[in-house]
Amino acid sequence: MRTAYHEQLADLNEQLADMCKLAGVAMERATQALLQADLELAEQVISDHEKISAMSARAEETAFVLLALQAPVAGDLRTIVSSLQIVADVDRMGALALHVAKIARRRHPQHALPEEVNGYFAEMGRVAVELGNSAEQALRTRDPERAAQIRDDDDAMDDLHRHLFTVLMDREWKHGVAAAVDVTLLGRFYERFADHAVEVARRVIFQVTGEFPEPETMHAH
Amino acid sequence: MRTAYHEQLADLNEQLADMCKLAGVAMERATQALLQADLELAEQVISDHEKISAMSARAEETAFVLLALQAPVAGDLRTIVSSLQIVADVDRMGALALHVAKIARRRHPQHALPEEVNGYFAEMGRVAVELGNSAEQALRTRDPERAAQIRDDDDAMDDLHRHLFTVLMDREWKHGVAAAVDVTLLGRFYERFADHAVEVARRVIFQVTGEFPEPETMHAH
Repeated sequence: MRTAYHEQLADLNEQLADMCKLAGVAMERATQALLQADLELAEQVISDHEKISAMSARAEETAFVLLALQAPVAGDLRTIVSSLQIVADVDRMGALALHVAKIARRRHPQHALPEEVNGYFAEMGRVAVELGNSAEQALRTRDPERAAQIRDDDDAMDDLHRHLFTVLMDREWKHGVAAAVDVTLLGRFYERFADHAVEVARRVIFQVTGEFPEPETMHAH
Repeated sequence: MRTAYHEQLADLNEQLADMCKLAGVAMERATQALLQADLELAEQVISDHEKISAMSARAEETAFVLLALQAPVAGDLRTIVSSLQIVADVDRMGALALHVAKIARRRHPQHALPEEVNGYFAEMGRVAVELGNSAEQALRTRDPERAAQIRDDDDAMDDLHRHLFTVLMDREWKHGVAAAVDVTLLGRFYERFADHAVEVARRVIFQVTGEFPEPETMHAH
């Protein structure tokens, strides 16, 4: 009985890691769709989003069944409760990739981004994929030190986001208000994606060590 | 024993309702701070945010203790698991009010908003407070029909948000890109506040009826 239970717990963790992977892939494709004004890729991200939603529902149900049938206590209970919170974070990562894809689709056949900021978004997309991978690896390895390294990627995302705003606020911005609105929203989506990935890593650290890392070393917005 | 348990469950629900109330008050004050460029009020929202965070932590702990000590099953278990998810939604509502207050503070002594859009934000603030109240009342009354009415307020917020974007995208927008960036982010914060309030109401309906309302009748972004 105990073994089957721990297998279910491991299975739940695998589900969460698989969801992270899918969310990272979705953000990678959404970024490509945005940069290339690739409608087909945008549509793919949009239709694939159902998979992430279905996996969320399944992971929640797995957690629920574990709570109902096993009445776990102490550490195991904390792990399952954290898993429920991780599901919500990863689900949101998927939704943010979806939002990026929808802006790419809305502006097609135009590019949503002025060429001047393509480099920022290419880089933010790359960092987002790294963050998705790091969150996935944090879940798979359950290594708190490795999980804590995600803050480096988050710092990189914050820097990119800050620079992007400097470009936007510059008097030399020549792309008009409509493009500025898109760039603002898109920048926010990448930043939030990063925040949720960091939150996943923080919760893994909590699951393993019983303590949350200091807010100074890992923070969300 | 059973009575004490149901008292704890009722207490948890009260905590969530109190949090909703505080989040609504925070958004009301943040909106005033924004419209009046009132630094003192903005600072108050920012320092009061700790209270909402502390209440979140306390509500999570109450839910956790209920799970640990009572090993609830079926309906009670669903209620407690939903409560954990409601905590996350209300916590985020508080964070969004905080973001609004921070923009008001950053732009002080200037007004963050061009006068042209003040009316939209006054109205979005009013609707946000309504949404906070409706979520609070959904929790306190546990009346699913009343909870479902929150979608009317959410529709009102969506309309306001859509109109605001029409104003932004208009060629006649004369307030420059920096103001457009602020207005875009602020608009998003109000919209997300509404989404989370709707999510609270949806979860109350789920707690009471065991079923989520149809996505066509209640949806988040």
